[in-house]
Amino acid sequence: MSGQENSLVNSTTRTQAPTPQQDSRLDYSAGTAFVEECYVPIRKACLPLLDWGFLRSDATYDVVHVWKGRFFRLQDHLDRFERSVTKLRLTLPYARDDIGRILCHCVRLSGLRDAYVEMICTRGVAPFGSRDPRQCRNRFFAFAIPFVWIVDPERQQRGINLTVSSVVRIPPQSVDPTVKNYHWGDFTRGLFEAFGRGGDTVVLVDLEGNVSEGPGFNVFAVIKAEVVTPGHTVLQGITQRTMQELCTEIGIPCRAATISPAELSQAEEVFLSSTAGGVMPATRVNGQPIGDGNPGPVTLQLRDRYWRRHEEGWHGTPIDYD
Amino acid sequence: MSGQENSLVNSTTRTQAPTPQQDSRLDYSAGTAFVEECYVPIRKACLPLLDWGFLRSDATYDVVHVWKGRFFRLQDHLDRFERSVTKLRLTLPYARDDIGRILCHCVRLSGLRDAYVEMICTRGVAPFGSRDPRQCRNRFFAFAIPFVWIVDPERQQRGINLTVSSVVRIPPQSVDPTVKNYHWGDFTRGLFEAFGRGGDTVVLVDLEGNVSEGPGFNVFAVIKAEVVTPGHTVLQGITQRTMQELCTEIGIPCRAATISPAELSQAEEVFLSSTAGGVMPATRVNGQPIGDGNPGPVTLQLRDRYWRRHEEGWHGTPIDYD
Repeated sequence: MSGQENSLVNSTTRTQAPTPQQDSRLDYSAGTAFVEECYVPIRKACLPLLDWGFLRSDATYDVVHVWKGRFFRLQDHLDRFERSVTKLRLTLPYARDDIGRILCHCVRLSGLRDAYVEMICTRGVAPFGSRDPRQCRNRFFAFAIPFVWIVDPERQQRGINLTVSSVVRIPPQSVDPTVKNYHWGDFTRGLFEAFGRGGDTVVLVDLEGNVSEGPGFNVFAVIKAEVVTPGHTVLQGITQRTMQELCTEIGIPCRAATISPAELSQAEEVFLSSTAGGVMPATRVNGQPIGDGNPGPVTLQLRDRYWRRHEEGWHGTPIDYD
Repeated sequence: MSGQENSLVNSTTRTQAPTPQQDSRLDYSAGTAFVEECYVPIRKACLPLLDWGFLRSDATYDVVHVWKGRFFRLQDHLDRFERSVTKLRLTLPYARDDIGRILCHCVRLSGLRDAYVEMICTRGVAPFGSRDPRQCRNRFFAFAIPFVWIVDPERQQRGINLTVSSVVRIPPQSVDPTVKNYHWGDFTRGLFEAFGRGGDTVVLVDLEGNVSEGPGFNVFAVIKAEVVTPGHTVLQGITQRTMQELCTEIGIPCRAATISPAELSQAEEVFLSSTAGGVMPATRVNGQPIGDGNPGPVTLQLRDRYWRRHEEGWHGTPIDYD
């Protein structure tokens, strides 16, 4: 039981967790969801059609990953999730410790050593005819599935081609980007545009035409030996923060900055950061090579250190699978 | 079998509709949903937790109403739904006629004479690990529930207090407003703001600060004896179009126009239009009375004509309940 965060499974309040209701005849190996007090195989998990989490995308979520049997930065993800819930005026039906235990149990039931673990709070179902979000009973869902990569390792190997879209990321004047949300219509438009132009994934722009964020990731550039990342109109990524910490460790300046599409194209290096994949080098922007078209030294150093620090238990919360 | 549109139930292709799978022991009276080839009581209807319709709000929908046993403008709603589906690069798993019959059967099973009927197309569930919307099998859902009012008739009676929000409607540069969508985070923010200021509902502004649309409705103002409604950054409402047709019938000029919040506050009349409620007078804006604080003559004339034309079978598709 190492790691800088306490192990959930040894917590003295463990007996207060929701009673696991599971069916030993079911196969949880493809993933497990927690829905209405029950643990169900992921393919059987559903939410009410009338939940405003669907009908109004009135929900927030967070994703934490498990690597080699340890959650990474679980407390930071729970912190952000709770802040998002509060900002949307939602109320979680479970205490923070219980949520940690539910996530842990989803992973444990699936037996996954590397996992993508999502927690969700929805507005819930309104009384018939009501248009008032204050009348809804908010709901909590969670699931654990095998680890997900924003861009699969095979395509990463030959180098990610990042398309800068003409689509504008939904601006903060409309939806608060610091509250992780499912308003991905702009990302989906951008993805179709990127695929049509031969890209692997997409980054959107802000209203001023500067680089914003991609579907599930922050973007970084190395410009004049400095690591920069857009700080406004984007989710404050926990992997983004991790990059900033690792830059400090290796003594490279890192800061939030405005990046124009032209600056991105001319950067020495470009990489993406996400819970779903960690540090991922982009070797082309709009089809044009970045530097010599290979992952650059800063990117590789950060990626190596990112995974090595995982192995060391940094920010880790071990899971007891027994 | 009157009305300007053909009755669905007499169509010669009826036998090609999905075989209704329903359980005669179940109670459909609170509403009926169509989910995965089955008709289920509305409270039992759900969608997969991993459907991108939820996890990415990657979906479109349309709502048609039934009044006194007749769909209103069903073909127009199906037209718009099909356009939305195409714009999002989705593919409907059912033909248009089948969709009409599914909607009809949802209403018939519930026995509802006045109903709110929603059709939905979602991206569906992606293969594990995929981030590519082209790999999803798109899904269709539908449901019929009792008729819904944007503002309930009782509050309409004492006059709707409309709050003009500081929240900006998600702009067309991000999400196409002509594709009816569930990106309602901005509306939900605006609703909380409105409730906090004593409002009954809310209208958002566009990036230039002009009046845009509300959660599920278009806004109209009568200014200098002319009926005006915002034409950009908004859904092209079918009830909005109906208003324009009724204005022509009664000889009042009606056009799309930019409306500032100040112009709205000083208008002779203000009203809302929606499938969920028809024509609804707003007698106050930000708490201040419009005109003498009572529904104005143009609004009342349009509302009376709207419902009278329903009774006459205008744009109606009768439902065979037997």
